[in-house]
Amino acid sequence: MGFAASAQQALGPGTGIVSPEINPDHSVTFRYYNPKAVTVQVAGEFLPTQTVVQKIGDRERVTEVEGRVDLVEQNGLWTYTSAPLEGELYRYTLYVDGQPIMDPSNIYQIRDVATWTNIFTLSVEKGDKGWYYEVQDVPHGTVSKVWYDSPTLGMKRRLTIYTPPGYEKNTKTKYPVFYLLHGSGGDEDAWMDLGRATQILDNLIAEGKAEPMILVMPNGVYFNQAAPGVAVNMFQPTLTNSRSQSTAEIEESFPDVINFIESSYRVKKDKNSRAVAGLSMGGRQSSALSRRHPNTFGYVGMFSGVVPPEENDKALEAVFAAQPKLYWIGCGKTDGVMANSLLLKNYCDEMGYPITFYESEGGHTWRNWRDYLTIFMQKIFK
Amino acid sequence: MGFAASAQQALGPGTGIVSPEINPDHSVTFRYYNPKAVTVQVAGEFLPTQTVVQKIGDRERVTEVEGRVDLVEQNGLWTYTSAPLEGELYRYTLYVDGQPIMDPSNIYQIRDVATWTNIFTLSVEKGDKGWYYEVQDVPHGTVSKVWYDSPTLGMKRRLTIYTPPGYEKNTKTKYPVFYLLHGSGGDEDAWMDLGRATQILDNLIAEGKAEPMILVMPNGVYFNQAAPGVAVNMFQPTLTNSRSQSTAEIEESFPDVINFIESSYRVKKDKNSRAVAGLSMGGRQSSALSRRHPNTFGYVGMFSGVVPPEENDKALEAVFAAQPKLYWIGCGKTDGVMANSLLLKNYCDEMGYPITFYESEGGHTWRNWRDYLTIFMQKIFK
Repeated sequence: MGFAASAQQALGPGTGIVSPEINPDHSVTFRYYNPKAVTVQVAGEFLPTQTVVQKIGDRERVTEVEGRVDLVEQNGLWTYTSAPLEGELYRYTLYVDGQPIMDPSNIYQIRDVATWTNIFTLSVEKGDKGWYYEVQDVPHGTVSKVWYDSPTLGMKRRLTIYTPPGYEKNTKTKYPVFYLLHGSGGDEDAWMDLGRATQILDNLIAEGKAEPMILVMPNGVYFNQAAPGVAVNMFQPTLTNSRSQSTAEIEESFPDVINFIESSYRVKKDKNSRAVAGLSMGGRQSSALSRRHPNTFGYVGMFSGVVPPEENDKALEAVFAAQPKLYWIGCGKTDGVMANSLLLKNYCDEMGYPITFYESEGGHTWRNWRDYLTIFMQKIFK
Repeated sequence: MGFAASAQQALGPGTGIVSPEINPDHSVTFRYYNPKAVTVQVAGEFLPTQTVVQKIGDRERVTEVEGRVDLVEQNGLWTYTSAPLEGELYRYTLYVDGQPIMDPSNIYQIRDVATWTNIFTLSVEKGDKGWYYEVQDVPHGTVSKVWYDSPTLGMKRRLTIYTPPGYEKNTKTKYPVFYLLHGSGGDEDAWMDLGRATQILDNLIAEGKAEPMILVMPNGVYFNQAAPGVAVNMFQPTLTNSRSQSTAEIEESFPDVINFIESSYRVKKDKNSRAVAGLSMGGRQSSALSRRHPNTFGYVGMFSGVVPPEENDKALEAVFAAQPKLYWIGCGKTDGVMANSLLLKNYCDEMGYPITFYESEGGHTWRNWRDYLTIFMQKIFK
């Protein structure tokens, strides 16, 4: 047994190496020190993606994969400089001799379900995507982690609430509420972390592009109380927690969330002061919630929503009979759920239901969901 | 340029490997897969620490370091099982060929200043330290990240506020306030993350061992607005941000924090309903705040406080003339600040000032600060 690594508080700046460094031309330099490594690579959203087809038995599996490039070594220091990049929040991973590691020089890392990823943000000019995802010198809303009682699910559950700047002071003002749902395996922290919802809404409100609103982000996995680390037991999230489950429990218990919000916060309580949207599984939940409660939400959004075609049915009639002010479907061209999104679009077109369909580049990614959120928040409560 | 690593949302359970696994006898097994590694080691608080003396020129530098042990490899899977452990929150780091990495199978990792560390918690029986640091099935308080205006410092600043279970419903009840300060290089998130303040207070209140109180955790670095990632610019914290700085700006601007809290929350406003304590730099700030504002705080705590001996002076006379209900000094036997803590203790003893001095095992570590917090919170507002 040897000894190393200080047991005292970690005080220093980690490695003393700057990585990633954003250069004046908006290229980015990655640096990693390891004199024993044979190969060091970086994979990330800042490199072009490519569609890869795998044969699994007699089926083909199509996956969109990130680019990966080699870092070059000199005296144990490995470096790579990217091409100039556009304003965005980028994820990346370092691979040392083939194994993924976190960049030890970058404190910015975020958990997505069960995988940690390094991030950096970059803004080329005011108003680009990176600008909206970064913290600007504007008034900031309050972000709270609150426990509510769900009699329907028989447990206390945690949700994230954003109240806009001025909420504490403007004690006569009532606000509209946007219920925002995460994806399969995610939790009530997801939209605030990789989703950058706080920054996007702070910045949109400051620019006068979104109405001041309350954002409510519940935990969408009905048998979980809360995110890992703040729930009883230190569970590890996996897709088996939530994959393929029905949305029935969330639909049925959702009034518990609304009742809690409408009795605890100063909110407007009419249909056109309520919006619901979600990504992936959360998109299906948004669809299901609007079908089960057609008079509850004036605005409905599906961001890469996993809506199976058998749900393009009679229940949608009640949704559109209630005349939602917006029924918004966003999906990326290479997203696996594009086929079903198009079936929903075509069904609605056939039935004469007014929807907004937004087709973007890319796939089933946070990069798209942040963008869809930015677009959607500018369209509601106006 | 090759391609790998899915660009889609990270859905899976990461590695499919369970690490760390807490065994029925409360030993812990670490697992890491890497067929190319030559050595894999684990260092952590669960191994005995050792004091190491380094010669730096003609000076000796004494550091307490964590133990480090080898994992054993079979078919690319490296494993190590510890001795049975007592209930605690433990940090650990894996070293692959000498380089520190995060355990890719453990989603629990926390940033401490500029260094990320894996953690796990373990409870052997109800009421042990690990039990207090884990989430129990008890009522939970609300944790909010709130921005307040500091006219003295000329900026909006962020703080973390814990309101106890029932705060939202008991609209007639007023609560005492405990101002809790972080260490050098830390920020307003630190006490909630590695400090587990939310869980400790939830559990102490549920057990009837602490009074329901509001916990206020400001950012103690006067020129920072907020923690990395929620402040303007994605800065990297380093000790140069805060090391050796005077406490004057925090002392002077602290009334801005108190005014904000006392005008925005339902709180008791008398001296004996206010406590202040902090760790390391925050301990010095607690001392300094009580010296500058002797009639403001009824309870003062220094957790491994970095209080220089020249501050054992006349100003303390006013502090004790105001008869604080508790003046609490906690320090570990091997902590570098023990010498100064003893000078403060001796000075107070000589002057006849009533203090409580708590000497623990160990050094300048979060392990001690969580424990001091647990003890201190049971002594205040009673």
